Amino acid sequence: MKPGNGQNRAVIRDVYPSIDGGFYPIKRVTGEWVNVWADVLADGHDLLNASLAWRHESETDWQEAPAQAIGQNRWHGKFQVTRQGFYQYRFRGWIDYAQTWQKGIGKKIAAGLEVGVELLEGIPFLQHLLGVVEEEHQVFVKECKAEFSVGKSNPEAHLLATSPRLAELFARYPYRPFMAQSADDTRVWVDREKARFSTWYEFFPRSASSVPGQHGTFADCEKILPRVAEMGFDTLYFPPVHPIGEVDRKGKNDKTVADPGDVGSCWGIGSRHGGHTSLHPDLGDLKSFQKLVKTAKGLGIEIAMDLALQCAPDHPWVKEHPAWFKQRPDGTVQFAENPPKKYQDIYPIFFESEDWENLWDEILKVVMFWIDKGIRVFRVDNPHTKPIPFWHWLIGEVRKVHPDIIFLSEAFTLPKIMLELAKAGFTQSYTYFTWRNSKDELIQYLNELTQGPVSEVFRPNFWPNTPDINPYPLQNPSEPLYLTRYFLAATLSSNVGVYGPVYEQMVHQSVPGREEYYDSEKYAVRHWDWDLRNNITHLMTRVNQARKDQKALQQTNQIRFCHLENSNLLAFLKTGEDDSQVLAVVNLDPNQSHHGELHLPYDWLKVGHNAQYQVRDLMSEASYSWQGERHFVALNPDWPFHLFEIKG
Amino acid sequence: MKPGNGQNRAVIRDVYPSIDGGFYPIKRVTGEWVNVWADVLADGHDLLNASLAWRHESETDWQEAPAQAIGQNRWHGKFQVTRQGFYQYRFRGWIDYAQTWQKGIGKKIAAGLEVGVELLEGIPFLQHLLGVVEEEHQVFVKECKAEFSVGKSNPEAHLLATSPRLAELFARYPYRPFMAQSADDTRVWVDREKARFSTWYEFFPRSASSVPGQHGTFADCEKILPRVAEMGFDTLYFPPVHPIGEVDRKGKNDKTVADPGDVGSCWGIGSRHGGHTSLHPDLGDLKSFQKLVKTAKGLGIEIAMDLALQCAPDHPWVKEHPAWFKQRPDGTVQFAENPPKKYQDIYPIFFESEDWENLWDEILKVVMFWIDKGIRVFRVDNPHTKPIPFWHWLIGEVRKVHPDIIFLSEAFTLPKIMLELAKAGFTQSYTYFTWRNSKDELIQYLNELTQGPVSEVFRPNFWPNTPDINPYPLQNPSEPLYLTRYFLAATLSSNVGVYGPVYEQMVHQSVPGREEYYDSEKYAVRHWDWDLRNNITHLMTRVNQARKDQKALQQTNQIRFCHLENSNLLAFLKTGEDDSQVLAVVNLDPNQSHHGELHLPYDWLKVGHNAQYQVRDLMSEASYSWQGERHFVALNPDWPFHLFEIKG
Repeated sequence: MKPGNGQNRAVIRDVYPSIDGGFYPIKRVTGEWVNVWADVLADGHDLLNASLAWRHESETDWQEAPAQAIGQNRWHGKFQVTRQGFYQYRFRGWIDYAQTWQKGIGKKIAAGLEVGVELLEGIPFLQHLLGVVEEEHQVFVKECKAEFSVGKSNPEAHLLATSPRLAELFARYPYRPFMAQSADDTRVWVDREKARFSTWYEFFPRSASSVPGQHGTFADCEKILPRVAEMGFDTLYFPPVHPIGEVDRKGKNDKTVADPGDVGSCWGIGSRHGGHTSLHPDLGDLKSFQKLVKTAKGLGIEIAMDLALQCAPDHPWVKEHPAWFKQRPDGTVQFAENPPKKYQDIYPIFFESEDWENLWDEILKVVMFWIDKGIRVFRVDNPHTKPIPFWHWLIGEVRKVHPDIIFLSEAFTLPKIMLELAKAGFTQSYTYFTWRNSKDELIQYLNELTQGPVSEVFRPNFWPNTPDINPYPLQNPSEPLYLTRYFLAATLSSNVGVYGPVYEQMVHQSVPGREEYYDSEKYAVRHWDWDLRNNITHLMTRVNQARKDQKALQQTNQIRFCHLENSNLLAFLKTGEDDSQVLAVVNLDPNQSHHGELHLPYDWLKVGHNAQYQVRDLMSEASYSWQGERHFVALNPDWPFHLFEIKG
Repeated sequence: MKPGNGQNRAVIRDVYPSIDGGFYPIKRVTGEWVNVWADVLADGHDLLNASLAWRHESETDWQEAPAQAIGQNRWHGKFQVTRQGFYQYRFRGWIDYAQTWQKGIGKKIAAGLEVGVELLEGIPFLQHLLGVVEEEHQVFVKECKAEFSVGKSNPEAHLLATSPRLAELFARYPYRPFMAQSADDTRVWVDREKARFSTWYEFFPRSASSVPGQHGTFADCEKILPRVAEMGFDTLYFPPVHPIGEVDRKGKNDKTVADPGDVGSCWGIGSRHGGHTSLHPDLGDLKSFQKLVKTAKGLGIEIAMDLALQCAPDHPWVKEHPAWFKQRPDGTVQFAENPPKKYQDIYPIFFESEDWENLWDEILKVVMFWIDKGIRVFRVDNPHTKPIPFWHWLIGEVRKVHPDIIFLSEAFTLPKIMLELAKAGFTQSYTYFTWRNSKDELIQYLNELTQGPVSEVFRPNFWPNTPDINPYPLQNPSEPLYLTRYFLAATLSSNVGVYGPVYEQMVHQSVPGREEYYDSEKYAVRHWDWDLRNNITHLMTRVNQARKDQKALQQTNQIRFCHLENSNLLAFLKTGEDDSQVLAVVNLDPNQSHHGELHLPYDWLKVGHNAQYQVRDLMSEASYSWQGERHFVALNPDWPFHLFEIKG
């Protein structure tokens, strides 16, 4: 079968970025640029030209900007996204007949050949220009037309034919009767800025009371907000705040049977008090929750809600929608298990249900319910145990109405599944940072995350700890280590989070041999000193402030590790959208001072060769005047980092 | 919008190979295997399974073979292609409920738990088996069903539930109510074997006469066939045999104006004697041409015809189809030019013609005309100066009727254009081998060609020279160099060709400073000694025989270069489909002897560690018994190569 128009000789191939053939969009936040590359191919020796076209989903017309040839048939174009939602982008390529003509006639004129016929051949290009150029160019183009029409070589026509002005008009108003376009399914999803730059704090509302032993309330949480804001956090994540199952409830330290008075795991959602759209009666009512959300907003803090799609045996859905749970041949409902282990307190949702459409709709309703109550950020529990196509649909549906909603994926699983969840729509993801400690591990992991297609869709959120993970190194209450791990998380990644109270106080006791906190808040009310100020809170406050002040720390992908011949010292440069730069140097050894010679990569450093430049340590306020690319650095464990702002 | 079936939790991603999202097929020849990889992803912890499915375009039903998990969610499957034409292939992936059940119940039984309900849960899988397993397994499955139905743990049921026999049935007859499939547009085009393994000889029919000065004929060509066959060539390519333009004909050595009696360039096609479906009257008529084709076939030689889509000013099309040529404002027809150079003897075809559909149809008719006369191989002149979409269509249309037609692309241009022509359908392509001389250049180039997506679509044909290219090194009549260049071409690549008469006689005179032959046959009748036998013809005969005997030399991609600490010695191993291996060692220096220690890569060598193995030099018949991976080799320029058959 012949193509639609066989006169078009150009083809576009290998558009980058394009995720899974355009099935998924890439991601940006408002204000960012999208860099696109493509091969533009055609037969013969005519000059080619190319452009990048884009439009917001709400627009009919395409915008367009010229692309640049970068060699070997590869072209590069870029555009800036300014609005939330989807943009489409396409590469365009065509034979540039007018420029080919101008180049050819130029050579012939230079060789002294008669070009009367060639001049006549230029007239269609002028005719095209007359239809599109501004008033100010009309006279010029008409003059060209008159001179070319003579049909004989003449000096005036030669000058006009080869003039830069004509070349510029040809470039600005391409004559392209035939044009190739890449498929229109390459898209970018644009989030609000917080998708890229956010600082999370986590605590359990039920531990928010200032009175030891007393169950916290939303009103108690409200009192803690100023401290969270003062430390520089902008997102406050609460584990589930819904009613907790009373049937087969777990006891403290994951005990199979609860003792009287045990509050249970807040991830065991649902009871006679309600399910996913209800609140735990001991925490407060909807009104007090909404008051909390509003007060937080006034302090620059968004409350992130947990979306944990699983049910306690007494969750209302279990009775109302038996088809949403796996029914066993003996008439019981399938509880969670990891054979031979059994978790009778949790009924997983049965996504293979024949009633899956109603199930999906109901979950969408849950999310929309909380959005309606003022929630804009969801931390999603174990998304890797619910179907990928479900998330793709759910997040897509939510964003049709609310493009500003942020979903953080709590998936600790195989890399490709984590990536797939990011592709399917999750805004941010938990990562392996929690287990990347050595210099080599950190460099390798950051290179994985910040380069190539992964960096177009996966936005890491680095957490040094979570209620589920008390990492082995932090089971040693070493202050330098606690300082360093938060510093690394907050400077390597523009999205960072911490399970705060235990971190600040270096609560490190674990279930023996496991990365579980002992006496975990997951199963109990705990009491914390909400007035605590120490080196760790000081560090958090300081580095969080630096993140607010430095564009370079508000993004993750523009990072470059520096050579430093000491495996305990990690150094990296980050560059912001505004070309500002910071240099971080970290001593990874909590026990020893280390020094070494740092090599700054000139090809990345926005400073001239041999120029003097100022560096100011944002952590200590010390300033230095530097020159050249090699600098001696020394760091001791007490305050094991520099964070230099570089001023050229 | 919800997906078709939300109960399906598996997704397939990143299928390899897939060229431009399936727009183009990959390539194979009959008998070859297609290796396919894909990511199979799903949520949760259930066991996954996957398979590869394929079907020939003439078939409705899919064949299927299990795929193997190779880690990190990646799976591998393969199938063999046995028929010419298109095959589709798809990856399939699913949650393996039956195997997940068997694994779970096994763990519970091992832990001594009651599994009555679990046994009942296994019954649907048995029910499925009863519908699909052979008679011999029915009794076994029924027995399982009876024991499982008891509804209580019992030793007999435990044994059956965990039995390898049941596992094997589950594996052979997967229970998959839901399944993901990759898109069905991944295809492989299957050629006949010659597409991969061919040995080309080129001469000009008009120089075939044994009488000096006399214009050769098809009858003269016929007399040369036995020699060509004896030297081991299976494809004989003739430059165009059509009438040559008489208007603005070029003279000897590309002189702008021909002298009386000059025969002209045979690429200047068309005259009062006819065009692309006519034969040059001095060569003979259609009958003598078809006789030649038939005689050649009897000797195992296919005649390859030139498809040069351009016209002399007196080609019949110029008058009959003015719309197929670019008409200039002064009423003349656009001739070829490379400003300021002019080639008045050639009118390029104007592919942007509004009459492009008729033009395409006419060219298809030309190709079909010659196919009808017995031609199965076309060497296409400068395909990179005709539109890529045109070739895609033309080759596709031809192959719908004649899947055995071979097209060799004579494109010497940018790598991506050469690759695109291969994707668009060309069976084989000329390459940069002609300009790759040093060890590093050769290794880098072969690695480019034989790895990744390029190796799935691009079949190189290595030519040490062509009538258009008298490479600078060969302008020095050094016999070692002529021996080496053919040896390299014929062993590195399974498709090889040589512009024979001048090569054998080391005709090396060039147009000064250029890679053009002096007194080129392109513009003149030449006379050659068709009885010549010398070292070069001996080498060609010998290496062509080795190619026929050794499967390893009948393919290009399975190549591995060996470490040899001497930049003048190149060594490489090739492995055939039948696991046979050859080892080539070449001295690239035409002036000096060289020696060195060769390291054979054990991970590639099909010989056990410390085993003795025999190597026989196919060029000299010398045999050696080797052991280990290091061997001393020495080669002098007189016979500068080993070609060892390795026998484990």
